[in-house]
Amino acid sequence: MKKTIIKGGILFSSTDTVNADILVKNGKIAQIGQNLEAPEANIIDAAGKYIFPGFIDPHTHLDMDTGTAHTADDFVSATKGAVSGGTTTIIDFATQDKGHNLTEALKNWHRLADNRSSCHYGFHMAITDWNETTRKELKTMKDSGVTSFKLYMAYDNLRSNDREIFEILEAVKTYGGLVSMHCENGDLVNALIAEQKRQGRMSPAAHPLSRPDFVEAEAVNRFLAIAEAAESPVYVVHLSTERGLSECLNARRRGQKVFIETCPQYLLLDDSCYELEGFESAKYVFAPPARKPSDEKALWKAVSSGIVDTIGSDHCSFNMKGGKDLGKNDFSKIPNGMPGVETRPILMYTFGVCKNKMTLNQMTAQLSETPAKIFGMYPQKGALKPGSDADIVIWDPEYEGTITQKDQYQNVDYTPYEGVKTKGQAEVVLLNGETVVEKGRVIAENKGQYIPRGICQL
Amino acid sequence: MKKTIIKGGILFSSTDTVNADILVKNGKIAQIGQNLEAPEANIIDAAGKYIFPGFIDPHTHLDMDTGTAHTADDFVSATKGAVSGGTTTIIDFATQDKGHNLTEALKNWHRLADNRSSCHYGFHMAITDWNETTRKELKTMKDSGVTSFKLYMAYDNLRSNDREIFEILEAVKTYGGLVSMHCENGDLVNALIAEQKRQGRMSPAAHPLSRPDFVEAEAVNRFLAIAEAAESPVYVVHLSTERGLSECLNARRRGQKVFIETCPQYLLLDDSCYELEGFESAKYVFAPPARKPSDEKALWKAVSSGIVDTIGSDHCSFNMKGGKDLGKNDFSKIPNGMPGVETRPILMYTFGVCKNKMTLNQMTAQLSETPAKIFGMYPQKGALKPGSDADIVIWDPEYEGTITQKDQYQNVDYTPYEGVKTKGQAEVVLLNGETVVEKGRVIAENKGQYIPRGICQL
Amino acid sequence: MKKTIIKGGILFSSTDTVNADILVKNGKIAQIGQNLEAPEANIIDAAGKYIFPGFIDPHTHLDMDTGTAHTADDFVSATKGAVSGGTTTIIDFATQDKGHNLTEALKNWHRLADNRSSCHYGFHMAITDWNETTRKELKTMKDSGVTSFKLYMAYDNLRSNDREIFEILEAVKTYGGLVSMHCENGDLVNALIAEQKRQGRMSPAAHPLSRPDFVEAEAVNRFLAIAEAAESPVYVVHLSTERGLSECLNARRRGQKVFIETCPQYLLLDDSCYELEGFESAKYVFAPPARKPSDEKALWKAVSSGIVDTIGSDHCSFNMKGGKDLGKNDFSKIPNGMPGVETRPILMYTFGVCKNKMTLNQMTAQLSETPAKIFGMYPQKGALKPGSDADIVIWDPEYEGTITQKDQYQNVDYTPYEGVKTKGQAEVVLLNGETVVEKGRVIAENKGQYIPRGICQL
Amino acid sequence: MKKTIIKGGILFSSTDTVNADILVKNGKIAQIGQNLEAPEANIIDAAGKYIFPGFIDPHTHLDMDTGTAHTADDFVSATKGAVSGGTTTIIDFATQDKGHNLTEALKNWHRLADNRSSCHYGFHMAITDWNETTRKELKTMKDSGVTSFKLYMAYDNLRSNDREIFEILEAVKTYGGLVSMHCENGDLVNALIAEQKRQGRMSPAAHPLSRPDFVEAEAVNRFLAIAEAAESPVYVVHLSTERGLSECLNARRRGQKVFIETCPQYLLLDDSCYELEGFESAKYVFAPPARKPSDEKALWKAVSSGIVDTIGSDHCSFNMKGGKDLGKNDFSKIPNGMPGVETRPILMYTFGVCKNKMTLNQMTAQLSETPAKIFGMYPQKGALKPGSDADIVIWDPEYEGTITQKDQYQNVDYTPYEGVKTKGQAEVVLLNGETVVEKGRVIAENKGQYIPRGICQL
Repeated sequence: MKKTIIKGGILFSSTDTVNADILVKNGKIAQIGQNLEAPEANIIDAAGKYIFPGFIDPHTHLDMDTGTAHTADDFVSATKGAVSGGTTTIIDFATQDKGHNLTEALKNWHRLADNRSSCHYGFHMAITDWNETTRKELKTMKDSGVTSFKLYMAYDNLRSNDREIFEILEAVKTYGGLVSMHCENGDLVNALIAEQKRQGRMSPAAHPLSRPDFVEAEAVNRFLAIAEAAESPVYVVHLSTERGLSECLNARRRGQKVFIETCPQYLLLDDSCYELEGFESAKYVFAPPARKPSDEKALWKAVSSGIVDTIGSDHCSFNMKGGKDLGKNDFSKIPNGMPGVETRPILMYTFGVCKNKMTLNQMTAQLSETPAKIFGMYPQKGALKPGSDADIVIWDPEYEGTITQKDQYQNVDYTPYEGVKTKGQAEVVLLNGETVVEKGRVIAENKGQYIPRGICQL
Repeated sequence: MKKTIIKGGILFSSTDTVNADILVKNGKIAQIGQNLEAPEANIIDAAGKYIFPGFIDPHTHLDMDTGTAHTADDFVSATKGAVSGGTTTIIDFATQDKGHNLTEALKNWHRLADNRSSCHYGFHMAITDWNETTRKELKTMKDSGVTSFKLYMAYDNLRSNDREIFEILEAVKTYGGLVSMHCENGDLVNALIAEQKRQGRMSPAAHPLSRPDFVEAEAVNRFLAIAEAAESPVYVVHLSTERGLSECLNARRRGQKVFIETCPQYLLLDDSCYELEGFESAKYVFAPPARKPSDEKALWKAVSSGIVDTIGSDHCSFNMKGGKDLGKNDFSKIPNGMPGVETRPILMYTFGVCKNKMTLNQMTAQLSETPAKIFGMYPQKGALKPGSDADIVIWDPEYEGTITQKDQYQNVDYTPYEGVKTKGQAEVVLLNGETVVEKGRVIAENKGQYIPRGICQL
Repeated sequence: MKKTIIKGGILFSSTDTVNADILVKNGKIAQIGQNLEAPEANIIDAAGKYIFPGFIDPHTHLDMDTGTAHTADDFVSATKGAVSGGTTTIIDFATQDKGHNLTEALKNWHRLADNRSSCHYGFHMAITDWNETTRKELKTMKDSGVTSFKLYMAYDNLRSNDREIFEILEAVKTYGGLVSMHCENGDLVNALIAEQKRQGRMSPAAHPLSRPDFVEAEAVNRFLAIAEAAESPVYVVHLSTERGLSECLNARRRGQKVFIETCPQYLLLDDSCYELEGFESAKYVFAPPARKPSDEKALWKAVSSGIVDTIGSDHCSFNMKGGKDLGKNDFSKIPNGMPGVETRPILMYTFGVCKNKMTLNQMTAQLSETPAKIFGMYPQKGALKPGSDADIVIWDPEYEGTITQKDQYQNVDYTPYEGVKTKGQAEVVLLNGETVVEKGRVIAENKGQYIPRGICQL
Repeated sequence: MKKTIIKGGILFSSTDTVNADILVKNGKIAQIGQNLEAPEANIIDAAGKYIFPGFIDPHTHLDMDTGTAHTADDFVSATKGAVSGGTTTIIDFATQDKGHNLTEALKNWHRLADNRSSCHYGFHMAITDWNETTRKELKTMKDSGVTSFKLYMAYDNLRSNDREIFEILEAVKTYGGLVSMHCENGDLVNALIAEQKRQGRMSPAAHPLSRPDFVEAEAVNRFLAIAEAAESPVYVVHLSTERGLSECLNARRRGQKVFIETCPQYLLLDDSCYELEGFESAKYVFAPPARKPSDEKALWKAVSSGIVDTIGSDHCSFNMKGGKDLGKNDFSKIPNGMPGVETRPILMYTFGVCKNKMTLNQMTAQLSETPAKIFGMYPQKGALKPGSDADIVIWDPEYEGTITQKDQYQNVDYTPYEGVKTKGQAEVVLLNGETVVEKGRVIAENKGQYIPRGICQL
């Protein structure tokens, strides 16, 4: 049976940095130590390279239909993009349709992902129709390895009201599951969109004005009050504002367990991206929107100080042609979302690690180890330990590149980071011990597997 | 024409304390000065007495039907109680019925109050059915002297959703009106009541557990976020918690205009009143409920430091027999509310002024001058000034008494303050210059008039 | 005896706005009412004019020696400037010299001011040498009408340590006195000045860098902790930062009594004034320095919402030639201070009232009524009431002018507001009932009197 | 050469919990894995036992003289106590005498500790005389393995002023060192002690009244402001109050690096311990004092949520006879301090882990791994990793015991926890691979070594 030794790299966990070799056997890490040897082993020279446990993206929307638009990326393209960037596992949002049940949704998502994915995948389940059947299916979900659930406080076709949120928190808690929330006050968003239109503002420039920071902060505060009532730990997705962050910190100070996710776009982009010529700004229409520089600054501090738990991509790509252009004359019709699953690690390395805003250990924590623990996959995933799955990133810290749409695996007709200079590269990626990426290019496809998950480990 | 001179009293406003005589003529204050004289004037010797502008209670619910219960007090009994305690004006909540309009509601309330009231009265309008007709009636309301509106975030038959709140704030602002809010998260209240029942807790002891402090604080925060979106000044009624107070102060710090009302029951009672024998605690079932001692302490500090603008009674009385007892076996069926219009001034004097927790100027401000200004009646009401209506309280600062149900004008079969020792008394009360109370007893009834109000003056 | 009637003006207090005439007799306000008449009275037509109680500047440094420099203005020039702008009373800082006593200091200041002042004046006493003699003199001071004391946390020759502050607070409290504080951490200022010099930064641009916001906020927090220990009310002078403001608000929330003063320069200037060509920025070297726009914004909100109690000028003028130029090659040798006693009212009217950032009632409160109350002069000063001294400003609300050094009474060779367009004017000013300013020009000098003060009335 | 295998235990780090064997060789951990074997190895059966990296106590005062009293424990007794409880390394405070230099102090402390210690030890250096010589010695200290420094804001013979603190922070930063601070405002402490005495309160009951929470919070805020000016990371020792905690969290939110240490006494004792009969309360006279239950609660939340970095003992023991009794008639003469180096781990296990207030991973972090990292000893200390020193605790999770003075190694005539029931025991302790504790009793003495330390690793 095939063995591999990765020699001479620098291995990272959230807390440690060590020089050691890794022996991979049977798709798993067999041993970590100095001067490892094994007869007939394939040797990868990783001298001077950084070795990370494969990155985990806890937030993607692939092959998703909004009713008016369909995402540009499906599991085929997006997971190739993911693994090429060092992401070996994604957790996508399976979504219940109103009037349908969770089991159907899960089956649908398996159909979309199975045998077509180039990295591993798990599913969160978005609940949109809370009733007694749904309640009963929570157990089925857990048995199927789906232990995290997503709710929305915005989007009329998706959102839950406060009572439903409370009941779902209570019910999910019974099974040790975790609920994550899209925190925006949907009523306020609707009202403020209407206000923008009434004033004749129809371009993408109106998008951030219809979702000011307090629209998020209010929802965060409300969600955390409901969680306080239900005595449940919770996970806030794509936190984007200083005020929302304040609400999270206040809840933690009260003793609540609140996991915080943010995304590269909230650290790297600001609302000046809504002032571009013509319809260009549509590329940046995602929700919540890019924020003020002061928000970025506050979020970076939260990343640096370990207040942020995870960084997800919120990958949800729409083509400019045949997608975003639905809202050519009405910003509120532009499908919300942008690509990111391919660039998340390199952006955090380039603008976080290389700018001294996060350490390599923090990068490991926020992009791999902590998502693995929160979403019940540790130490199978998220760790370089004997016994862990051999999903391994060999990172060239010195590589210099440029982000450009035409070089990407993502199947979308633009990148929000066109022309951005980057540092570092996922030079080699192993999936279950097999080399699937070399020199940053995918050399083996469709090797991804479904990852049933256990309960939250933090 | 009848003239009266009140001689030798100490006159209070929010900012001043002066020794002066008052000359009353034609129902109005004609002059204030030293050694006033007028031929044939009726002389009231007020040496050593405190003279206040008649107190204003901005929060009463009289002759109100909840669907299952009817308040014990109507305008006849409650306004006698009010004026006997020194309250010369109340603002009651006229309430729109679903499917009906504001004009009908206003007409109904006039029918209940006109020619039957022993103190003056105005109306807030509670909007429960927001639609284009209602929107158009806002102007009618203003023209009829109704410039303040009440919304609810709890009670399924009354509550508005966030979008409606936003739209109403925007619409009312157009006419210079003010929106006040009952801040409790109705969904959470419903869920927590259900939770208490599921656990078999059916007695009044479950009432505060179903409405913890964050149920209020969440609603306050949300209301203030909506007000921030609408750029509207707002009024929070019956604030009861330290956390809710914090939210208000944060909004003020952001530059928002937020008026804060609290009530004597949140300053004087705590949640130990829910641990009484048998069904006694039902007397204290009002919403929000009595809180923790730490909340009381925080609210007193807010009163002392002028953070609180007004103190209302939230008078909403139900008899124990044939009212509260509807919830004998289910606390959630106990009609919410308690009496208070008669005792508000004496409680604030006894436990505020005499305990050095508020000054006499602050008492004047919070019980008279500021409600007059906020609700558009100043200086007709709320002031001892030449030209002001001669609604005047001559207060004996040394009188000692005891609160007891049997001595009250309020027509309800209990008082929450039975046996409480008090200091001070509204010895003489003038309404439009006419003496209607002497030695604390009503000597002239039905002298109250409707007070059409202008817009907020603060 | 001479009588004057001011007819048809609009009279302001902190709470009221009324149209009335004022009858002045014997240097006092005799009556306020409609259509007043008096035989042989001098009639001033004030139709359409605003009538304020004479403004009070609670913060001036006149005829003061720093050891290296002497202020440009003495009581002669500054009080002419003051009264020409509508300020009828100032409270100057008499300052104890080390090794000398308070009585001497008070005598010195009387010598500087008596018979030379064109507006009224009182004295705060700055304590710089706390010992048993000083302690005993507190009573003498009170008996001499000096009821407020000033301490410094910065300036090596002036500052008190924490223990002295505590002891002074406790001692002053005994006599009902009030302690005000210059809040900057002197050690940090010294260290940061040294740091700037070590880096070769010797120009005025280094001034704000040597006194960042936390230098003030730390001192405010510490002062308020000491006041908490001593259970004393306190007064923070020239508050300049959002962080310092936060500390004050936190203390108020804890129930402490904290009066807050700010100055026009912290509302109107920002730290871009330290980037001027050559040595121009020396004009703006005062301490604390001009701050960030975000601080200005926070302070304006505090003014608008009544969080700020008073607005003082901190007038402390030094000529550019023969004063500021001492620090030509070393910013730390520039004497700290700028003129302002003449322009405080017009700046607040122009940029506060006319920009809707404060109401006319708030202007009255913060510039006149509240300083009068805090510093024990109400209602003799700070009020338009029968019995009050007839220090009255008749303000032309529509006058348009331009601030320029050459037109000022202040005897300093620059104004920090050169060329600024203004609105409004103290057209006529009465001092003890006598017209001392007409059309904005002083027509009668040296009419000012010493005002012995009582204890704090708030 | 002697080998040992610890078989079947559960190994803890801050992030991981694994079942594995440990092979110890040459005093170091050679291997961690399943079913380890080695010829002639000594086998320790640890089935079901918890295996921790040896605990590190970052805060002890041994063989210390206060001028009036000498600590009861020297390095001989205290390190036996330490190791018997599972603490394999302490960091004691070497203290500069005024007029003497750091090198002398270090030599003195080596003399006290070398060849007499039963656990390992390092030294922080307390700077009390800041001058140019001291500045130059910082480098010597670093070269001698002393990379952390301690300052005091209280105690007249020890304290630094703000300027010295700033300069020391700047200087220490140059060498990568870390400054820790005793945060109490010494002036306020002195003033409040004097106040207590003036009121005739001479018993230990006056101790907490002379050091209220704001005395700590003020100092914390000031220290963090100085650190902000110096842009230095800092370490706050023995944090005891909710308000102090708030100041730390505010600084973190601003982006400052602030390490927080608390002690078991602030989690387990409250100020009711100052109400004991006679002189008993003297046992609890330490500074800062035991606080309010609300402070305890806030600190436990901070422990649970990972806000607290380390838990030290602040061991500083004085006998009741011939020590504490110095203050029989004057609480301020009672030497401050209490024992704790022996009981720190068992108290945190019993009242933290077993009460679900901290996880075993958090206990590992706060008692071992994080102190190792902050104070530059990781992964030599604080880790169970190949290559780490074999300082290992084998913990019996089920052992039940009782704390009593007579059973302790600590050489002090009382324990503050007399009679307290405990859970768990450091059954076996290895120091450099050698078994020095068995069944909780020390079987080999004087095996401790000096640990030179590197710079902060967090």
